[in-house]
Amino acid sequence: MRKAAQLGFGGIYVKPDVGGSGLSRLDTSIIFEALSTGCTSTTAYLSIHNMCVWMIDTFGNEEQRHRFCPSLCSMEKLASYCLTEPGSGSDAASLLTSAKRKGNTYVLNGSKAFISGGGDTDVYVVMCRTGGPGPKGISCVVLEKGTPGLSFGKKEKKVGWNSQPTRAVIFEDCVVPVGNLLGAEGQGFSIAMKGLNGGRINIASCSLGAAHASVLLAQEHLTVRKQFGEPLANNQYLQFRLAEMATRLVAARLMVRNAAQALQEGREDAAVLCSMAKLFATDECFAICNQALQMHGGYGYLKDYAVQQFVRDIRVHQILEGTNEVMRMIVARNLLQE
Amino acid sequence: MRKAAQLGFGGIYVKPDVGGSGLSRLDTSIIFEALSTGCTSTTAYLSIHNMCVWMIDTFGNEEQRHRFCPSLCSMEKLASYCLTEPGSGSDAASLLTSAKRKGNTYVLNGSKAFISGGGDTDVYVVMCRTGGPGPKGISCVVLEKGTPGLSFGKKEKKVGWNSQPTRAVIFEDCVVPVGNLLGAEGQGFSIAMKGLNGGRINIASCSLGAAHASVLLAQEHLTVRKQFGEPLANNQYLQFRLAEMATRLVAARLMVRNAAQALQEGREDAAVLCSMAKLFATDECFAICNQALQMHGGYGYLKDYAVQQFVRDIRVHQILEGTNEVMRMIVARNLLQE
Amino acid sequence: MRKAAQLGFGGIYVKPDVGGSGLSRLDTSIIFEALSTGCTSTTAYLSIHNMCVWMIDTFGNEEQRHRFCPSLCSMEKLASYCLTEPGSGSDAASLLTSAKRKGNTYVLNGSKAFISGGGDTDVYVVMCRTGGPGPKGISCVVLEKGTPGLSFGKKEKKVGWNSQPTRAVIFEDCVVPVGNLLGAEGQGFSIAMKGLNGGRINIASCSLGAAHASVLLAQEHLTVRKQFGEPLANNQYLQFRLAEMATRLVAARLMVRNAAQALQEGREDAAVLCSMAKLFATDECFAICNQALQMHGGYGYLKDYAVQQFVRDIRVHQILEGTNEVMRMIVARNLLQE
Amino acid sequence: MRKAAQLGFGGIYVKPDVGGSGLSRLDTSIIFEALSTGCTSTTAYLSIHNMCVWMIDTFGNEEQRHRFCPSLCSMEKLASYCLTEPGSGSDAASLLTSAKRKGNTYVLNGSKAFISGGGDTDVYVVMCRTGGPGPKGISCVVLEKGTPGLSFGKKEKKVGWNSQPTRAVIFEDCVVPVGNLLGAEGQGFSIAMKGLNGGRINIASCSLGAAHASVLLAQEHLTVRKQFGEPLANNQYLQFRLAEMATRLVAARLMVRNAAQALQEGREDAAVLCSMAKLFATDECFAICNQALQMHGGYGYLKDYAVQQFVRDIRVHQILEGTNEVMRMIVARNLLQE
Repeated sequence: MRKAAQLGFGGIYVKPDVGGSGLSRLDTSIIFEALSTGCTSTTAYLSIHNMCVWMIDTFGNEEQRHRFCPSLCSMEKLASYCLTEPGSGSDAASLLTSAKRKGNTYVLNGSKAFISGGGDTDVYVVMCRTGGPGPKGISCVVLEKGTPGLSFGKKEKKVGWNSQPTRAVIFEDCVVPVGNLLGAEGQGFSIAMKGLNGGRINIASCSLGAAHASVLLAQEHLTVRKQFGEPLANNQYLQFRLAEMATRLVAARLMVRNAAQALQEGREDAAVLCSMAKLFATDECFAICNQALQMHGGYGYLKDYAVQQFVRDIRVHQILEGTNEVMRMIVARNLLQE
Repeated sequence: MRKAAQLGFGGIYVKPDVGGSGLSRLDTSIIFEALSTGCTSTTAYLSIHNMCVWMIDTFGNEEQRHRFCPSLCSMEKLASYCLTEPGSGSDAASLLTSAKRKGNTYVLNGSKAFISGGGDTDVYVVMCRTGGPGPKGISCVVLEKGTPGLSFGKKEKKVGWNSQPTRAVIFEDCVVPVGNLLGAEGQGFSIAMKGLNGGRINIASCSLGAAHASVLLAQEHLTVRKQFGEPLANNQYLQFRLAEMATRLVAARLMVRNAAQALQEGREDAAVLCSMAKLFATDECFAICNQALQMHGGYGYLKDYAVQQFVRDIRVHQILEGTNEVMRMIVARNLLQE
Repeated sequence: MRKAAQLGFGGIYVKPDVGGSGLSRLDTSIIFEALSTGCTSTTAYLSIHNMCVWMIDTFGNEEQRHRFCPSLCSMEKLASYCLTEPGSGSDAASLLTSAKRKGNTYVLNGSKAFISGGGDTDVYVVMCRTGGPGPKGISCVVLEKGTPGLSFGKKEKKVGWNSQPTRAVIFEDCVVPVGNLLGAEGQGFSIAMKGLNGGRINIASCSLGAAHASVLLAQEHLTVRKQFGEPLANNQYLQFRLAEMATRLVAARLMVRNAAQALQEGREDAAVLCSMAKLFATDECFAICNQALQMHGGYGYLKDYAVQQFVRDIRVHQILEGTNEVMRMIVARNLLQE
Repeated sequence: MRKAAQLGFGGIYVKPDVGGSGLSRLDTSIIFEALSTGCTSTTAYLSIHNMCVWMIDTFGNEEQRHRFCPSLCSMEKLASYCLTEPGSGSDAASLLTSAKRKGNTYVLNGSKAFISGGGDTDVYVVMCRTGGPGPKGISCVVLEKGTPGLSFGKKEKKVGWNSQPTRAVIFEDCVVPVGNLLGAEGQGFSIAMKGLNGGRINIASCSLGAAHASVLLAQEHLTVRKQFGEPLANNQYLQFRLAEMATRLVAARLMVRNAAQALQEGREDAAVLCSMAKLFATDECFAICNQALQMHGGYGYLKDYAVQQFVRDIRVHQILEGTNEVMRMIVARNLLQE
């Protein structure tokens, strides 16, 4: 992680005055794709960290930006994104974690679920309710580890994403200074969603990397492994399946890059394109990795072989940062409201 | 057609000095997509005409360029591409139509199958064998209607593509001046394949238009048609399917545009990207149109409704200009030779 | 048709005392599958005729059974099933055709859409509203051609199913004797649905026949057609696709046969199994036929080749007798009410 | 396991005179499906054990049957099936493990890969080469743990199937009495394949159980979990997906039961039907379990929830006992040789 930070990967699309690399969304996508060909899970966490830093950089005031961003960009500190709750997943706007104003502080109560990095990270970007029900009552505050009343659940055992811990984050009369509020009260949901636009193309980029690596692994295995006296690669069926995998990978990549470009340019359809890219790329890339596993035969099922790691790691990309069902909902709403 | 020619669609990517519009492959893709939202079959023929004119413009000498292109660009004359034979489809390089040199002429014997426009068009770009077996023995000659020995089979009855005739083209001691040879002897297969690179993104662009129109038709039908007391569009399942269709259409479009760009730039991977784009876009767009038909219920099956026309017309795009099985072969070969 | 009647196909699962063959649902499925390998469209109409005769046989009183069934079983007369209306397709229970009681008659007003055989057939089994809104207000009456006030729309132009006419059926103060009511008032929707249970496996059986014939056509074409110096059948990719087609056909057949058996035995889950069978078999068989067309290359697109006829004919099986979306609804309701 | 043995599950389709339960293949399928709704991995091993005992029961002589079967049926001893080698997977007939005749013994050298139970089980049914290359040179011998020269590789770390160990089995001058040969020399490959016919429907039955359990888990989750103020089960998209899952499960079950029946009756097409059933059921059931995981949202990715266990366990069913690519090959060969 420190090494990644030295390369400027701690705040890739964060402004340089607070330590960020000031790169574009397109650059970011390319970087996350490249990194995730190595370890998808680590890169995926890194993408979440970047999303958090960007949120502080973009919606924080100058004091907040300079207080939080430099150590996050250098990755002396790591960040977690806290939106999902045990009772609110797809319906994020129904979250219950309350932040009651008390003098110059907010007192938080409630809990967050499935928090990547939770317990191991230093900075928590928390969506909580300061007002009435619905999205307008939600605010975004930044918490630091060590704050009294902040605790963590057990480390979850997961199918993949095992290089990063996932824990519940629990608030019990947890006191946060008002100065840690990002933006204004009631803007939290909007901030969270804007973070997710980028988050979705980032996670989709991680799927691209996993799929790219899996295609290469499959290609290698087909070339090296012999059956019936010749390389597996001589089997036309496997050749054609490999061609389909590569074709779908290119399509997925174009979807992600195109959405990144749209987001960078602030195009009106950027959010929909991000949702489409996340839906398409995470679905297709899982299918690609899973097919690559199949091409390995029995070896694909062994933990000694990398391909199964990619399959397990990216399975969750179809679920998090908005399930792919929620992506369909966003796209459909956009189509039918026109 | 004449109107299309006035707009410059008779030679979109043909050089202006012979009457072409001199536009890029990307422009061409956008134009064919737009036109095919109206009539896919007519646009598809137009795309073949353009491919032929481009071949003459690119591989013809100055005399040939000026002799043939102007009347083709103005669409006073129309062109047909003659590669496939009854016995050679996917294995185009095994074609048997012979062109024997005799003085200043070639004498052609043989026949071509599935020729779009055949019998109604004026100019025939014919791949024929002047040398030994295999691709190196193939040359490309241009024939004009009315040449003695040139005749046509019956008009084929087809599932779609009915705004254009398809016929066999038959050569019986058909005499062509040597001056009608495009390029050198033996270059015909290479010329044919170079034409097809563009042809594939053109035909894929026609699929995009059909799919785009079908998504709009489905959207309209879902919004207008009521069942169970509310518009069909209120059904979440249909909403999500529509979202998938739109998402896949965007992916298909990006694939085609990206290949067009690569071809324009003369990138080394252009041919593979064209094959991928043709495979992906024609498969996905057929699925989109077919799903749009399903969303129309019984109305989708009636010829009074446009959606079935798109389904029938683009079905053949998965087959012609190289079947999608051949596309897989091209992509696979590229992946496994690396 | 007369020949089919001589073989007992006019009332396959109708009781023998009124001229039926008294065979089981399983027998019926086998017969319709076999017949539809020849002409799917004709067989599909025959299956609708059988459904109507069965409805009269099962829900009619003795007088009705003996009045209508013999000439229908011998196919001197043909029958049509009239449920769908322009405004009520999937939501069949919202039908508007009214039947007002007037002395010993019902006076019908309204219209039916997409009626197979409409205009050419002799007997119309019509679902109409004798009571309030919803399914309980619907009754089933039998009408004969020539009844004053009964007329027909234009012959629809369709993608397939062209051996049988489809027309709207229009009732304008159309007077029907009360003695033509099947069952009691208010039972019409229930009768219609019971007819459809059988209708669904019948139509699914027709899909099986089309798919079976298409697999054989593909197999034949792959064996005979040569490319690259050998039969297409030597291509492993095509071999494996053919294997998938055959496998899915077997699965579809088992689904249909199993539902037929359940319906015959009056099992409680028969209706759900019929819906599952219709959904699965008509979807899979369309995919099989469409893949068989692809295997024919350009020839598959020509009307001289039978495979495209199967594709066009069975496309509508995914839509009629309850769309496959309605099948999903029925199955889902059953799963989630348990 | 002992409890399972008391219920007669140690030799379900083994003859009663040696301790078997004497049940049919259909019974066996039903039992394995039921057991695997609990633990798929354990049941899958049990199915392999059963296959081995059946091989000894069927191809062994009286002495062998009585020597080995009783303790295997009671599961005092457990068995492993040893066919696959590091260099021969799909091409099983190319196996290299040699068995050289030396007096009254065979001396084995070579190694087997991916052996379920390997190292923990007591009886090894080993395919080895006593003759020339190809299937005719293969024989089948039974080895007992503790035989000098028999050793095991490290315990493989796998994606699933973790309730059973998988190890390489290594033979170094491993001496086996000639009396441990099953059938005659050269019959080993045929014996192995006959075992696999049953093995394939057994493993497919285990996939059915996993899929059935996953559908129930999804149904439960959809009913209990609320989002947007109502149960997930109120979402039409999820309802319809659940309907598809249930429909495909029924189809998969019918395929397996039908193949089991065919095998029981010794029908000529039994082997092909077993291959089709294995291909269809293991592919479809994986898709079902994977979709059920998706329906759980983030919870589906946690090891606290059972659904991911089913996904991980049955992934390998698409690979082992003949990969699904080999199943396609068997089916295709059958179709195209007719």
